[in-house]
Amino acid sequence: MKDEFAFIQSITPAYSFRDELINGIGDDAALYRIGAECDEIACTDTMVEGIHFKKDTMTPFQIGRKALAVNVSDVAAMGGIPLFYLVSLSVPNSGWSTRQLKEIYRGLKALGDEFQMDMIGGDTVSTRSDLHISVTVIGKIEKGRRLLRSNARPGDVVFLTGPVGGSAAGLSSLLSGDTNSYISYHQEPNPRVKQGRILAKSDCRISLNDVSDGIASESHEISEASGVSIVLEQDLIPAPEGFDAYSSFQRLEWMLNGGEDYELIGTVAEADWKNVENLFLKQKESIYRIGYVEDKKPGVWMSYKDQKFKLDKKGYNHFSSKE
Amino acid sequence: MKDEFAFIQSITPAYSFRDELINGIGDDAALYRIGAECDEIACTDTMVEGIHFKKDTMTPFQIGRKALAVNVSDVAAMGGIPLFYLVSLSVPNSGWSTRQLKEIYRGLKALGDEFQMDMIGGDTVSTRSDLHISVTVIGKIEKGRRLLRSNARPGDVVFLTGPVGGSAAGLSSLLSGDTNSYISYHQEPNPRVKQGRILAKSDCRISLNDVSDGIASESHEISEASGVSIVLEQDLIPAPEGFDAYSSFQRLEWMLNGGEDYELIGTVAEADWKNVENLFLKQKESIYRIGYVEDKKPGVWMSYKDQKFKLDKKGYNHFSSKE
Repeated sequence: MKDEFAFIQSITPAYSFRDELINGIGDDAALYRIGAECDEIACTDTMVEGIHFKKDTMTPFQIGRKALAVNVSDVAAMGGIPLFYLVSLSVPNSGWSTRQLKEIYRGLKALGDEFQMDMIGGDTVSTRSDLHISVTVIGKIEKGRRLLRSNARPGDVVFLTGPVGGSAAGLSSLLSGDTNSYISYHQEPNPRVKQGRILAKSDCRISLNDVSDGIASESHEISEASGVSIVLEQDLIPAPEGFDAYSSFQRLEWMLNGGEDYELIGTVAEADWKNVENLFLKQKESIYRIGYVEDKKPGVWMSYKDQKFKLDKKGYNHFSSKE
Repeated sequence: MKDEFAFIQSITPAYSFRDELINGIGDDAALYRIGAECDEIACTDTMVEGIHFKKDTMTPFQIGRKALAVNVSDVAAMGGIPLFYLVSLSVPNSGWSTRQLKEIYRGLKALGDEFQMDMIGGDTVSTRSDLHISVTVIGKIEKGRRLLRSNARPGDVVFLTGPVGGSAAGLSSLLSGDTNSYISYHQEPNPRVKQGRILAKSDCRISLNDVSDGIASESHEISEASGVSIVLEQDLIPAPEGFDAYSSFQRLEWMLNGGEDYELIGTVAEADWKNVENLFLKQKESIYRIGYVEDKKPGVWMSYKDQKFKLDKKGYNHFSSKE
């Protein structure tokens, strides 16, 4: 990149979606106004070249799109509406052309536009090595409607908004150099904002998490935050189409611990389950009952026929294999 | 780092300062509430090892502290109150001990505590190379009080809240391996939140910028955003104590283009200047008149005795020397 100022100019949005925005990019900081009827939501996530993606597993467009998607998914998991995003990009001294960097921003914008979000700030710096992209998302939710992990109660139904394991299967195929029909799960995940909104507006007590680290790990988080035990029923967990071509071990490993599916997993009272199911049906969105909550000490179990076995909190621990 | 979860546990704040905070670290995203009487402010900045700091020019504590300070300075430059911050840390596979990483968070917390800010979120990922720290700050300001760069008008006084050039002098000394009395300007800058608040509450029309890139570059930004010309008077610009030991060329280069001083530079109507000066005096804070605004096409000039010369928009362009 020859000129930082010209580059920033080229990626500065030409228009904005949100009435809440007062002043976007162009001053020391962005200014906006949410209003008294909503609480606010903020989260941040970083993707690093060589760790979260490689140039041969994702295009620059997909990298930008996903860096925003994983944050929007966190807002969805609170039942919120994503509004704004800020982007910090660390650009290696070599190996990335201005055209590729613009593609990253095109990917960010594609997902931002899909949810009518405005990019309101950022930072572009150079680095000696790998590309880093760090995104912060700000959102809102009607007061008191937030869907916390700590909301699960004994007797609740555990639900999931879509099949899991696809992202891990896609990544596995990308890393071995071939392609299967699952790679788009990994490269272009879709945050479940609409589903989160249906749940937030249902007026039911709901616990919720997005599936970034695999449903075993996400269930553990709900279990621990709520002080309950969770049982997942193996036969009820939806798999992507064609998954039975894989060994049952491989399939379950991807489904339970693969992560990066960005579906929503949560719990709702048994008495409200039919209601929730109907709300999803009306909106033509899918939701699956996959287990139940028990009044036992925190832990996650998998039931299969009349057996039950304990699930570890595996998921993706960024540092587990490092030292 | 052996275990990301244990590390995150160790840096999660044990208490919070802000009534606005509903739910901090521990769910998919943070939740807070600002209220109807304020607008909100958001900004983000990244510091990269080898580019913005080196292990031998700054301690881990200072790196964390400064990563937050530069963002708080942006909020100060809007006249706002910093409230919350989110931290994304990319940790190299080797070279940084858990103790050093905790020191980074201790530095963040030291500055955060100084301004009663809460850390409400973050992400900790690994990287194959240099450490990256990316901070987002969220703040607030009373509705309509924001101090934009575009507020300067012909006839305004140009002011500065303190001496500039110290940070560049300190860095220069650090890079050549010795120490002078200026290194703390570089290592431990102090964002001018109090000064920004005095200006915001003054009820005057004020344009404002923080000195991150040097006063020449910051003046250019105000000049361009406001469509006016700015004249800086060489003899009025405050230098750090002892600066006359350096050649006048070196001194001026540091003062005009050094950057990272994080003082505030801005303009106010001549008729309001005495008022502003008195407000600062009352609060025992310094403010210096260093120039004036002219009704000419955008540009920045330096006046010295009866000469005037044009100042380039130099400052620090992260990519200028790279390709």
